[in-house]
Amino acid sequence: MNFCPKCGSPVSLQIPDGDTRSRHICNSCQTIHYENPRNVVGTIPVWEDKVLLCKRAIQPRLGFWTLPAGFLEINESTQAGAERETLEEAGAVVEVGPLFSLLNVIHAEQVHLFYLAKMHEPIFSVGVESLEVRLFSESEVPWDEIAFTTVTKTLDWFFSDRANGLLVNTHLLATHLHDIGDEERVDRTYKS
Amino acid sequence: MNFCPKCGSPVSLQIPDGDTRSRHICNSCQTIHYENPRNVVGTIPVWEDKVLLCKRAIQPRLGFWTLPAGFLEINESTQAGAERETLEEAGAVVEVGPLFSLLNVIHAEQVHLFYLAKMHEPIFSVGVESLEVRLFSESEVPWDEIAFTTVTKTLDWFFSDRANGLLVNTHLLATHLHDIGDEERVDRTYKS
Repeated sequence: MNFCPKCGSPVSLQIPDGDTRSRHICNSCQTIHYENPRNVVGTIPVWEDKVLLCKRAIQPRLGFWTLPAGFLEINESTQAGAERETLEEAGAVVEVGPLFSLLNVIHAEQVHLFYLAKMHEPIFSVGVESLEVRLFSESEVPWDEIAFTTVTKTLDWFFSDRANGLLVNTHLLATHLHDIGDEERVDRTYKS
Repeated sequence: MNFCPKCGSPVSLQIPDGDTRSRHICNSCQTIHYENPRNVVGTIPVWEDKVLLCKRAIQPRLGFWTLPAGFLEINESTQAGAERETLEEAGAVVEVGPLFSLLNVIHAEQVHLFYLAKMHEPIFSVGVESLEVRLFSESEVPWDEIAFTTVTKTLDWFFSDRANGLLVNTHLLATHLHDIGDEERVDRTYKS
């Protein structure tokens, strides 16, 4: 941030009175501009023994597979955002269930939230941000071609919990929590 | 937003190509500026049969009681943010446990996340944003003087889950999810 979004004057980094962190403060109107992590919300769409994945048509990680997910918008709940992204990217109408995982992606200034979701019929289509959308059984999942570590973790927990019978009574499921460490960062270099 | 934070030129609301929502776009450098909900992270600090609450020294809801919580910052996980707020507002060192509740506060453009947290000793102090900090048993909780609906809901779930024995084995706990509806909005008018 170089200029105040409110009045257009230059800003400078200063620690406000009573605060402990540097913030962008307007040199003219004195407005303090806070910056905070953003939420990425998505689903694990389940049809019978399969999950629905999308091959990304956009950067970053074009050509890699992901669960349907995207930035939470103003004026929607996290569940509604996850449902909307599933419809936009995978053309699938889902019934959103329990929160399944929360992953802190500190280097990207993001929090990823994935909800379990039921597909009531195997109907889906290729959204504009996808190259391909298909259902995968556990043995078919392209583990080496998953776009993001948060998706790999979430799919891994999903199949593990399913094998342990925890998805039958979802009240037994605690939300999986994880911070993505530096060693787990996916190389965000654009694929050529 | 009136001016581009990047180059200082005026912005206008337009729907970008391939998008469905109006965004602030810079008339000069064409940067699209997205706005997203912010996370408020906090804890339910537990000591024996009591929970730790703070009386707010700041607006909104000055003089009302709350669980320690505040905005998630860049460069911290949701758990670390919740732990930090508990130390800042209540002077308490806690061991952060499972995610207990996620509440969408759509009108405020916020998502509230509360974690169960253990106090290993009954040590706390009054932070600069608090007027008073104290431990409350269930029967002592000042239900009519709670600052925010998300805190009332979370405390209500906490005591209910405890009565049902679910806090003994937290693996039985599913994260409580709730959207704060218009009828549940707390009047944010500053208390004089």
